[in-house]
Amino acid sequence: MSDDNVVYIGNKPVMSYVLAVVTQFNTGASDEVLIKARGRSISRAVDTAEVVKNKFMRDVEVKGITIGTEVITGDGGATSNVSSMEITLKATAK
Amino acid sequence: MSDDNVVYIGNKPVMSYVLAVVTQFNTGASDEVLIKARGRSISRAVDTAEVVKNKFMRDVEVKGITIGTEVITGDGGATSNVSSMEITLKATAK
Repeated sequence: MSDDNVVYIGNKPVMSYVLAVVTQFNTGASDEVLIKARGRSISRAVDTAEVVKNKFMRDVEVKGITIGTEVITGDGGATSNVSSMEITLKATAK
Repeated sequence: MSDDNVVYIGNKPVMSYVLAVVTQFNTGASDEVLIKARGRSISRAVDTAEVVKNKFMRDVEVKGITIGTEVITGDGGATSNVSSMEITLKATAK
């Protein structure tokens, strides 16, 4: 899967990311879209997946969810851990 | 799986829930613990699972993750949707 099919979740409203995911499904080459988030944005990633699936694209299903930990290195070289999540959505009818 | 093996994530610090999960594994009858969260607590659920797995119980793995939407009815009868998540942890060595 190329980076074209990845939607990174940040601090914008959920609908911004919902629109990005729906656009990817409608214009992208792949029948899958990967939603990635870290830290507190993780709950927004779940919101995005649920809204896409329940309100906009009924033929989309959650193919898989993975969680992990990423090590962030700050300016001073100090490291901290942050949780990460990837949700793979798949269009079943495309 | 009985409710004994479910840890509900709220607004406490992550380590409170980590302790609850580790205690469940060590004293409960099941080799699985289910972590449940809603809304903004979802990111804390992921933190909890990652800390248990990476720092405390190396033999624990993520067996499955599911997401969903729950309908909350307020005092006035108005409803709103909230995302939910369940993470199933399994002890492989137990």
